Amino acid sequence: MEEDIYYIRLFDIYKGLLTDKQRELFSSHYNFDLSLSEIAESEGVTRQSIYDAVTKVKQKLSEYETALKILEKNEKLISLAEQSDKVTAKRIYDILG
Amino acid sequence: MEEDIYYIRLFDIYKGLLTDKQRELFSSHYNFDLSLSEIAESEGVTRQSIYDAVTKVKQKLSEYETALKILEKNEKLISLAEQSDKVTAKRIYDILG
Repeated sequence: MEEDIYYIRLFDIYKGLLTDKQRELFSSHYNFDLSLSEIAESEGVTRQSIYDAVTKVKQKLSEYETALKILEKNEKLISLAEQSDKVTAKRIYDILG
Repeated sequence: MEEDIYYIRLFDIYKGLLTDKQRELFSSHYNFDLSLSEIAESEGVTRQSIYDAVTKVKQKLSEYETALKILEKNEKLISLAEQSDKVTAKRIYDILG
């Protein structure tokens, strides 16, 4: 579950670098909570092929974070915002979007 | 020149998403200031092919910024740092790296 939340956070940051198909697949499984079998059935393919595709998306997301570290930086900025005055905190949250 | 600086900034942020070959090419031209003709000669290819490859790298960098807007956010954070107390400013610069 904690791993899921990690990948959902990475997805929120890096989804713009994925293909439409990868975005749809990831959202179906992680945001709309469809099982791999349910997605496979609706697509008319094997569960294994969906599993492989989801694994590939997760690998991509990890690669992006290794290269860019946006999630790591965002978490440090949130921590800074929590320790700052209200005006500074608001500006940090506005920048993070 | 201003456009060059823009792409050099994008490169500093997104180079981890480029291939080794793309990184080498971009650095030769923008960081080490070799002309397209000089690169072409040392690679034994046409100037046009180097021009095309550099153009493709610049397109990639623009695509990454459109998708992720890290440069835009970093500039806002630097502006915030400049208006903050020294301790907060240092923390922001440390996070930006």
